[in-house]
Amino acid sequence: METTTLRLTGRLEPRDGWSAAAGCTIAKSVELLSTRSAFLLMREAFYGATRFEEFVRRAELTEATTSTRLHELVEHGLLELEPYQERGQRTRQRYLLTEKGADLFPVIVSLMQWGDRWLSDTGGPAELLHRGCGAVVGTELRCEHGHIVELADLDLAATT
Amino acid sequence: METTTLRLTGRLEPRDGWSAAAGCTIAKSVELLSTRSAFLLMREAFYGATRFEEFVRRAELTEATTSTRLHELVEHGLLELEPYQERGQRTRQRYLLTEKGADLFPVIVSLMQWGDRWLSDTGGPAELLHRGCGAVVGTELRCEHGHIVELADLDLAATT
Repeated sequence: METTTLRLTGRLEPRDGWSAAAGCTIAKSVELLSTRSAFLLMREAFYGATRFEEFVRRAELTEATTSTRLHELVEHGLLELEPYQERGQRTRQRYLLTEKGADLFPVIVSLMQWGDRWLSDTGGPAELLHRGCGAVVGTELRCEHGHIVELADLDLAATT
Repeated sequence: METTTLRLTGRLEPRDGWSAAAGCTIAKSVELLSTRSAFLLMREAFYGATRFEEFVRRAELTEATTSTRLHELVEHGLLELEPYQERGQRTRQRYLLTEKGADLFPVIVSLMQWGDRWLSDTGGPAELLHRGCGAVVGTELRCEHGHIVELADLDLAATT
């Protein structure tokens, strides 16, 4: 049996000829996001949470964890602070998704899609629907020419 | 300023009316994958590593971490063991991607794409190309009718 993988090309072949350590953006992304709580807080940001107490309650995390993690997410530029004031209350800060944070959405959707398929007996408790046409939404691997691409159709090439 | 989020619909609205804890497949996926080393080993599986010493060397992890993590990935069904024998050597085990493991590829690509865009000055050290046409490959958010979908076009609906 041969397993399907992508194909390394150019000076990326053979794999033992180079180290991914320095530049690998998969590793960099994972390092920035590799706590369960970071993902849960980002999930809640996409579900509309903006206030500290909403994040605590909805992500079901402690105040301490939520505080530490939100601080990191702001520091990394995934969320930004904005002052807001409710009538008769003092000014407080709320957390909004930045463009960088919002752009993480395909990662969250891919994780949900994979979990729905492989970790749930029921296909998952919720689904994403395209409001315009009602069809189910997921992530697809496509090239810039619009072709749907399989793992076996892929070359990995060095850019630098 | 209003932040863009998806829209919760049906009995998922309001968000404070339900707990995601029990069934959330984002959380489940993250729990299974939430170590940096798991991602690096899966990356190397997609790059063609099958043997223990290849994983150690290419993922730049210790033997102990590699061993623990590969064992978990087998246990979770992302990799499977297959005996192999090189001429004159004893039979050994190699690690192959299962269908469940291979299906994780969009998660890895989404992380790479996000890291290329936001965590690298150069756009990342490597790119995925569609062998058939040479165009760059990434993940896209699309509905089953083929429409490209933005965060603001999304409804989250309960399935059960």
